[in-house]
Amino acid sequence: MAIIECVPNISEGVRGDVVAGIAAALTAVPGLRVLDVQSDATHNRSVLTLAGDAAAFRQGIPLLFERSLAVIDLRTQRGEHPRLGAVDVVPFIPIDGVTMADCVALAKEIASDVASKFALPVFLYEDAASSPARKNLEDIRRGEFEGLAEKMRKPEWAPDFGPAAPHASAGASVIGARMPLIAYNINLATDRLDVAKKIATAIRMSSGGLRFVKAMGLALEDRPVVQVSMNLTNYEKTPIFRVFDLVQREAARYGVQVLESEIVGLVPQAALVQAAEYYLQLEGFSGRQVLENRLRDA
Amino acid sequence: MAIIECVPNISEGVRGDVVAGIAAALTAVPGLRVLDVQSDATHNRSVLTLAGDAAAFRQGIPLLFERSLAVIDLRTQRGEHPRLGAVDVVPFIPIDGVTMADCVALAKEIASDVASKFALPVFLYEDAASSPARKNLEDIRRGEFEGLAEKMRKPEWAPDFGPAAPHASAGASVIGARMPLIAYNINLATDRLDVAKKIATAIRMSSGGLRFVKAMGLALEDRPVVQVSMNLTNYEKTPIFRVFDLVQREAARYGVQVLESEIVGLVPQAALVQAAEYYLQLEGFSGRQVLENRLRDA
Repeated sequence: MAIIECVPNISEGVRGDVVAGIAAALTAVPGLRVLDVQSDATHNRSVLTLAGDAAAFRQGIPLLFERSLAVIDLRTQRGEHPRLGAVDVVPFIPIDGVTMADCVALAKEIASDVASKFALPVFLYEDAASSPARKNLEDIRRGEFEGLAEKMRKPEWAPDFGPAAPHASAGASVIGARMPLIAYNINLATDRLDVAKKIATAIRMSSGGLRFVKAMGLALEDRPVVQVSMNLTNYEKTPIFRVFDLVQREAARYGVQVLESEIVGLVPQAALVQAAEYYLQLEGFSGRQVLENRLRDA
Repeated sequence: MAIIECVPNISEGVRGDVVAGIAAALTAVPGLRVLDVQSDATHNRSVLTLAGDAAAFRQGIPLLFERSLAVIDLRTQRGEHPRLGAVDVVPFIPIDGVTMADCVALAKEIASDVASKFALPVFLYEDAASSPARKNLEDIRRGEFEGLAEKMRKPEWAPDFGPAAPHASAGASVIGARMPLIAYNINLATDRLDVAKKIATAIRMSSGGLRFVKAMGLALEDRPVVQVSMNLTNYEKTPIFRVFDLVQREAARYGVQVLESEIVGLVPQAALVQAAEYYLQLEGFSGRQVLENRLRDA
């Protein structure tokens, strides 16, 4: 069965009952599972982690918009996290039995649907973006809700779907498709912050490193240890093991060893199987050989 | 939900329609899934891979005995594989949400049930064994069907359940519980068979190596490469990565490198995650962080 993950970010993180009401409505959609809800009051933002197939999202995401637009008004909403819309961003993520192209198609279909249903401008982003200038969420969101009306007057910021001006209370939404993000940190057996920063610079894409790595060096607050803190944005093309090996190699350059690494939050099974295949030099291995996968598909 | 695997071996591998009929009967049992059926005509033996919960097996395994005993007669059955019974061996294997103790209890319950239903002697083995002398299947099966009547006259070979003498056509059965087996081979970048044999001797339990490794060295028929061919009988206590590292180290002793490794058939997800944790030095990782596991449990 096809499994798609979807991680909508909505601009409400203070009123717990409002967020719980939205999550409960989604739970009632057949085939849609609400895996996680994280609210941050300071950011005034909630992140919902959903899973299901395309049919579940065709029903669930318009419902998410309906419920969110009824209770979130950006004209009065305040929070530390930048936001453009009441439903700020909706990424679809291929997990199993589904391709990125499938998720792009689904994102476009749902974007078109919610744009017309709610008279809401929608921008496509990441793998669903209609041009390279719209790939990055940060570029689309720059100026935020408050600057949106002016930004949209420029021809290059016409929305991909919906009206040419912002929704009065809900702004605009960003919908798209992307690979799963892996939050991955490597701790070094040293307190030398300069080493962590140099390694971060060496391995991240923005300064010449691996294509799908974002990284920074920081000092842990509770231990005399520094960390290379990373987001891996495409584990298929930039696998965890290659990141680990490269960090280990760069650390050795400064006489420093890797103390440990950690995965924060969820990780697709394939990203770990990939590491096992690499280090064990496994040839001809298929995900179909994982007993749990066979059980699930039986 | 609890998942138990069961891999019955029946002494019929020639008549495909007979085996298919038995598999079809099992497929109809609620909650029982037939994941795989492998028949070997030379061995005259079929291996069924089943999955389900305890209730499914309480219904399915007696049905397997009923159907098999009706069509298999060991007085005329011939094949290369040693066998004691029409249903030769039935191991229960804990996969998820179930302990080895649960599987031992289930094995005993079902052993008692089929012994009385079919007037069949049943021996318990592996983790369900009633004494150390009965842990190994090979010890119980030694002498095979043809020598069984004489063997059972010795007090030490009284069955754990059922009559004191063999079933006329079905012999006796061996039922128990064990960890999942992993068939794991490492190919070496050499054609020196002596090196593969020396490494096999070094790493297998029987000659002083790792506790849960069975190994032999052999030459591949189709390539100028030798192989250390292994069964890993408890990947929790003797993990794949430790076997791989040790073989690599022993090979280096002879100036030989590991060419590749392979897993034959199914492998529990945990055995691969374990390898990723080891090589990536992952700290604090939990199977709950694997996205697919979270989805399954949601």
